Amino acid sequence: MNPSRVVTLTSDFGLSDHFVGTMKGVILGIAPGAKVVDISHAVPAYDIFEGAMTIASAYSYFPRGTVHVVVVDPGVGTSRRPIVAVAEDHVFVAPDNGVLSLIYEREGAVRVYQLTEKRYFLPDLSQTFHGRDVFAPVAAHLVNGVGPAQLGPEIHDQIRLPFAAPEVVAGRHMRGRVIKTDRFGNLITNMKRSDFAALLNETAQTCLIKVGEFTIAGIASSYAEGAPAKPIALFGSTEFLEIAVNQGSAAELLEAGSGTEVQVVPSL
Amino acid sequence: MNPSRVVTLTSDFGLSDHFVGTMKGVILGIAPGAKVVDISHAVPAYDIFEGAMTIASAYSYFPRGTVHVVVVDPGVGTSRRPIVAVAEDHVFVAPDNGVLSLIYEREGAVRVYQLTEKRYFLPDLSQTFHGRDVFAPVAAHLVNGVGPAQLGPEIHDQIRLPFAAPEVVAGRHMRGRVIKTDRFGNLITNMKRSDFAALLNETAQTCLIKVGEFTIAGIASSYAEGAPAKPIALFGSTEFLEIAVNQGSAAELLEAGSGTEVQVVPSL
Amino acid sequence: MNPSRVVTLTSDFGLSDHFVGTMKGVILGIAPGAKVVDISHAVPAYDIFEGAMTIASAYSYFPRGTVHVVVVDPGVGTSRRPIVAVAEDHVFVAPDNGVLSLIYEREGAVRVYQLTEKRYFLPDLSQTFHGRDVFAPVAAHLVNGVGPAQLGPEIHDQIRLPFAAPEVVAGRHMRGRVIKTDRFGNLITNMKRSDFAALLNETAQTCLIKVGEFTIAGIASSYAEGAPAKPIALFGSTEFLEIAVNQGSAAELLEAGSGTEVQVVPSL
Repeated sequence: MNPSRVVTLTSDFGLSDHFVGTMKGVILGIAPGAKVVDISHAVPAYDIFEGAMTIASAYSYFPRGTVHVVVVDPGVGTSRRPIVAVAEDHVFVAPDNGVLSLIYEREGAVRVYQLTEKRYFLPDLSQTFHGRDVFAPVAAHLVNGVGPAQLGPEIHDQIRLPFAAPEVVAGRHMRGRVIKTDRFGNLITNMKRSDFAALLNETAQTCLIKVGEFTIAGIASSYAEGAPAKPIALFGSTEFLEIAVNQGSAAELLEAGSGTEVQVVPSL
Repeated sequence: MNPSRVVTLTSDFGLSDHFVGTMKGVILGIAPGAKVVDISHAVPAYDIFEGAMTIASAYSYFPRGTVHVVVVDPGVGTSRRPIVAVAEDHVFVAPDNGVLSLIYEREGAVRVYQLTEKRYFLPDLSQTFHGRDVFAPVAAHLVNGVGPAQLGPEIHDQIRLPFAAPEVVAGRHMRGRVIKTDRFGNLITNMKRSDFAALLNETAQTCLIKVGEFTIAGIASSYAEGAPAKPIALFGSTEFLEIAVNQGSAAELLEAGSGTEVQVVPSL
Repeated sequence: MNPSRVVTLTSDFGLSDHFVGTMKGVILGIAPGAKVVDISHAVPAYDIFEGAMTIASAYSYFPRGTVHVVVVDPGVGTSRRPIVAVAEDHVFVAPDNGVLSLIYEREGAVRVYQLTEKRYFLPDLSQTFHGRDVFAPVAAHLVNGVGPAQLGPEIHDQIRLPFAAPEVVAGRHMRGRVIKTDRFGNLITNMKRSDFAALLNETAQTCLIKVGEFTIAGIASSYAEGAPAKPIALFGSTEFLEIAVNQGSAAELLEAGSGTEVQVVPSL
């Protein structure tokens, strides 16, 4: 299923320690033909929610059969289960702590297996670094053609975390919040393009977006439409509404970040 | 032209978001044999000048035929043109905003084509992430053997930004400035080794280098020649004059950075 | 000896400049089949001790025959020797400044050769960037099958830096110190699991660990055993005692870091 032999890595390990390099060593030792690609290792430490968003933003752009390893794992060494989740075109290896919740939501049929077959782990299993000892070797064995069902029993009670959807009152208002600030200071909200169809009564109707003391009229289509030091709103590359400043940082200008409320009201 | 199948990436995307990983997924989906190498993703946001310097410092060390993707793109989503620039041994894919100016300067004959053939882009073209939707897929198609002329019409009015050269009065002085501070705090100036031949009248002549209140006598050949906490000057690995401190940071000691004036006067 | 063609890179170059990308270009130009993997480039500038720890933590997880390039090189351009060190299953390319000390300690028989054959360097040899001009090309030639003895004469006086072992008085106490803080704020000490066997008189005996005003009773086996905002001690993934806080930062809570003394006394 994975002719491309691509393995992606997403974690909260950062790049300053040896952790990520060590995982790649383990993978290449077991699957010499694997092509390992970093998605991000800058997920904030222990932040399962942001880990979930990071892998959800990227996975669908990888070749069919890619094995995605996601390690944000505050429960390492406890009884939390290591799992493999098999979607139509992608396979995910992760701790069962909700970090795959958005995958379950977006992919229709996902089969989940608990990783119990220790012969696919490293022989010296630590209680502190399952990225190295469990998830990396399992990903490599999947590249080598081991089937998910060989790794352990199927389960159906995997953990699904709720991701707060915006509150929409059709024709009246939508209340959402900022869920992430990107490297450019763009404020990414939890309001999808499709949520706007539910809010606005008429096709041509536009809206006002309110963040703190700022009110933004209408939705732009590119960052460069903004005037200097003026916030704009637009749908970003993952289809969520973003607040941005042309060649500046919306996070700084609006003094906003994760959790900041964003309100949308229809206008004529 | 690219038997090595190497694709390099240079951008201001940082490594904390999913952007760079997503671009690699797109490339590997189209060109499974591509070898993607990061040059740097820490170009300061929107800084076309530093993006130009970063790619200019690195590209010539890559194998013949390498495809270099450079995405510092404040105009994404506007009418700024996406281009491919073909030099003798290297190919560059970038927005037409001047980020390739130093390539045009250093490479004799460069042919530039505007990217207009949308069948080489991703089908869902966003207005906010052309690294993913335009530049990555085009680079992958180039690796697969698509010729630059298939991507769109040749143009001749590509944007060339002026890079301030130092002011040289032969035998009298040279005035330049710091253009970059590297990770070690070395202050890299815009004064090339060849500029010194124009300044100094005699082969054996040496010089004084003045930065703020500091005066440095002569040019060293290695960082380790410097005494502790004393600045030295030397030609760095890209042939520009640098101000450095042995096992210390010149940027901190001299309280200097991009834009700081550096003056050189001949001495006996 | 290197059928896997893996080359690892460890350095203090950071990821913001072009340095690491340029080294990869050089390697791929000479050895097109090489697979280059970063271990870490965030070794603090000029910190040979941390460079030594980083490579020692990771190398053994890579495939047999891997070539490990380690460039923490404050003496670049001086008479310090570039070397290749050949252990049973791994090859190391580095400056001879002690950065391989822990490799010499852990690997039984290591043969060390001075790199003198300039035909394996880049032709334009700078005095400021031997990562690019010496270590990267030598690593690539090793991947291509060049034997270490072809690179220069064997030496026996390579530099070995002393790494302070903890002071152990059997049955009384052990005094060690923090040698590294990782990305999660875990404080990694110089006390190995085997040192505890020397300290404790009885198999079932446990201990108290004292760091500043904090006293920790006993040794946990996973991070998740800790109560919120309470430090715990455990053996980390590299078998050194760590002080950690469950989903928090021990470095912040204890206001501790490299050099902080840690004392262990037996208890019943």
